[in-house]
Amino acid sequence: MGSTTDLRDVYSYIDEHQGEYVGKLQRLLRQPSIAAQSLGMDEMATLVEQDLAELGTVPRRIGTRGGFPVVYAEFSGANNRTLSFYNHYDVQPADPLDEWESDPWSGEIRDGRIWARGVSDNKGNIAARLAAIDAWQKVRGSLPLNVKFIIEGEEEIGSPHLQNFADDHPELCQADACIWEFGGRDIDGRPQIHLGLKGICYVELRARGARTDWHSASATSVPNPAWRMVWALARLKGEDDRILIPGFYDKAVAPTQAELEALADLPDTEQERLDDLGIDRFINDLTGQELHLKDYFQPTCTISGLLSGYTEKGQKTVLPSQAMAKLDMRLVANQDPHEIYELLRKHLDANGFTDIESELIGAGYPARTSLEASIAKVVAETYEDVYGQVPAIYPTSAGSGPWYQLCDAFGIDACTAGVGHGRSQAHAPNENIFVEDFVLGIKHIAAIMDCFARR
Amino acid sequence: MGSTTDLRDVYSYIDEHQGEYVGKLQRLLRQPSIAAQSLGMDEMATLVEQDLAELGTVPRRIGTRGGFPVVYAEFSGANNRTLSFYNHYDVQPADPLDEWESDPWSGEIRDGRIWARGVSDNKGNIAARLAAIDAWQKVRGSLPLNVKFIIEGEEEIGSPHLQNFADDHPELCQADACIWEFGGRDIDGRPQIHLGLKGICYVELRARGARTDWHSASATSVPNPAWRMVWALARLKGEDDRILIPGFYDKAVAPTQAELEALADLPDTEQERLDDLGIDRFINDLTGQELHLKDYFQPTCTISGLLSGYTEKGQKTVLPSQAMAKLDMRLVANQDPHEIYELLRKHLDANGFTDIESELIGAGYPARTSLEASIAKVVAETYEDVYGQVPAIYPTSAGSGPWYQLCDAFGIDACTAGVGHGRSQAHAPNENIFVEDFVLGIKHIAAIMDCFARR
Repeated sequence: MGSTTDLRDVYSYIDEHQGEYVGKLQRLLRQPSIAAQSLGMDEMATLVEQDLAELGTVPRRIGTRGGFPVVYAEFSGANNRTLSFYNHYDVQPADPLDEWESDPWSGEIRDGRIWARGVSDNKGNIAARLAAIDAWQKVRGSLPLNVKFIIEGEEEIGSPHLQNFADDHPELCQADACIWEFGGRDIDGRPQIHLGLKGICYVELRARGARTDWHSASATSVPNPAWRMVWALARLKGEDDRILIPGFYDKAVAPTQAELEALADLPDTEQERLDDLGIDRFINDLTGQELHLKDYFQPTCTISGLLSGYTEKGQKTVLPSQAMAKLDMRLVANQDPHEIYELLRKHLDANGFTDIESELIGAGYPARTSLEASIAKVVAETYEDVYGQVPAIYPTSAGSGPWYQLCDAFGIDACTAGVGHGRSQAHAPNENIFVEDFVLGIKHIAAIMDCFARR
Repeated sequence: MGSTTDLRDVYSYIDEHQGEYVGKLQRLLRQPSIAAQSLGMDEMATLVEQDLAELGTVPRRIGTRGGFPVVYAEFSGANNRTLSFYNHYDVQPADPLDEWESDPWSGEIRDGRIWARGVSDNKGNIAARLAAIDAWQKVRGSLPLNVKFIIEGEEEIGSPHLQNFADDHPELCQADACIWEFGGRDIDGRPQIHLGLKGICYVELRARGARTDWHSASATSVPNPAWRMVWALARLKGEDDRILIPGFYDKAVAPTQAELEALADLPDTEQERLDDLGIDRFINDLTGQELHLKDYFQPTCTISGLLSGYTEKGQKTVLPSQAMAKLDMRLVANQDPHEIYELLRKHLDANGFTDIESELIGAGYPARTSLEASIAKVVAETYEDVYGQVPAIYPTSAGSGPWYQLCDAFGIDACTAGVGHGRSQAHAPNENIFVEDFVLGIKHIAAIMDCFARR
């Protein structure tokens, strides 16, 4: 039993009702909810509210001054400690659709897995957490501690209005600890814990030329926005992968000795990752601790989208009138997304690219929880109890999210726990989780509540 | 009457039947015929054959060994000289559709113009040439000289199989001169003559990364094909517009003194062009003779298309698995498209971009007719007769086409004549010609036949 009390009654209930819990998850999966395209968001918020109401709470739909609302709910427990769950009801777009092996909005079960856009990121975690509450209530009556759900609708577009929620309702954010929205197993099956997130600065760049597309014979003398964009982008990162924006790295914090040691203890999953990605090597042939340092302590500057001119089959001799690029910059501790945006703008201008228009469309601060935090230890110990494996501890995740606004800013420690795995394909076609991990994830949440209530 | 005999009877007939001729043109315009998308090609070839058959000839549909067929027809005339007309029944794709003010496949008449994809390039010229034959036959009986029509179906995709036609049927290509597919007035209304074409080397580049799109958090270590493409492209042309491929410019021929003088005599249409394009200045602030030299005697390297990752609205944090670029290189006299492709490939490889896949999807040789050629003088003199204006003479066009294969290779002089104008928007939305120019163009073809028959 390790660090929890005897939870066999709760676990048995979860095993007996797993069909019901999977069904409730599929109900969420069948509702597209793409914030970037304003698709199905109200319908999805309503489904989540219905699920919460069935557990005996009165969910609130809280406006965010211009964005999709937060679905908020509280459960009173047997002591005065409070655990909050941060989740999001929006998902990534499902394209490219032709690479999916089943309908991304079906929640099809195949080969022991559930396949759908958002199943790992993060409707599976919403459903697992709600199921844990349900099982505990059905078996034991009241929860062992107070629980809060903060389920926002804009995580996949950079949580642009969640700061408004935190500013307007600081009391709703208060908690003794927070379980973050994602988590799960590594590629080698070992559970993993992340104690922080990278920040993000997501920018759209646009170049314009002639007022409309033109015959490419004119390219001798008519400026081509596709070339302007290529030249501007080539000024941002060199072929050696070094970001060229002056000052970009200045505020980045180096890892502590304890963090370096945690990195050194991470499992060696390089070959599995390479096989899974279908590539031969990582950038600059990185491996071992160097690869870990790059993944978890280095910022990125990524082209996430490029579009100009004719992109269909064959030949069209066109001089494009517009070019667009999407830049996704992941930031490490102490980098400020707004400062980074200003550095980018200044760099473009200084190099003569005043004609390249830029728009900051997503900004999030990096966040960190201490390796010594109580919630970190609780999640680690209960992973060991439920999964029978010592988890790998990542000082931070390579991903991003509003951890800083909801946790660091309130002095709340946070930690990840969830139902995903190393091949869950979040943000990519054929996103999936294992049914087995979904059931283990429900039990894990029950164990976390039990254990954290007594710290 | 200048250089023609008295053609008032033919011209009157054309004026009286212009409604009928415009109707026949609209019938062609309403049939989409996009070779790049294999759309409507058979239907279009049939329409052209029907129009030819109505003029009393028996058109032949001649296979090109893998491409769309050539529609070929002959008319016997009153003497043994032969004039050939080169045209094409394919058109450019119509996208971006939302920038059209009327259906691109309607042939709508508005403000004295006919609007449709392909109306200037070059269904308007097909229709005008057929109308001239019709009018001459109706008024005079037999034509003043032999006439041939070579109407291919792949000009807009680089005429990839026209060489097969020329190799298989050299006798059908023989003529004393050729009237090229396009032509018309400059932006200032002055008729123009072009005595050559640039060559073209059209290449598609592809970069690949992970086997599918991935979460952009992985961009620390997983290669991004969008960056690979940007870096590769930035190696091809500098911000000063100079092409960086070693050897690219080596075989380009400088203009002769006569050509320089012809350039100096071209109308000054710079401000009209800038206004029309909606831009402030040409590349590198070029103007005057420098601009003419760049437009007509310099090759280009143009990005005609760019695609990677997420290109819809908003934020998607994706690491793309593929990137694509289309490169349109226009070549000047003596540059060989196959050599240029090899130089490009070699340059990519030499700079470490062996991972960038390339495919040559269009190749055409540059071509030139002498300023002193008989057909050049005939077209110029008849322009003056019919339009009342001395034409501007361009030693070459900035555009491309299979002039070399059909003319230079057989020792045939060629010249442009047509119904377009400086704002015809060929290859762009809202392509159009003036109804008045269509009627003048029919008369001009009649005048060319009359005049060339007597040289």
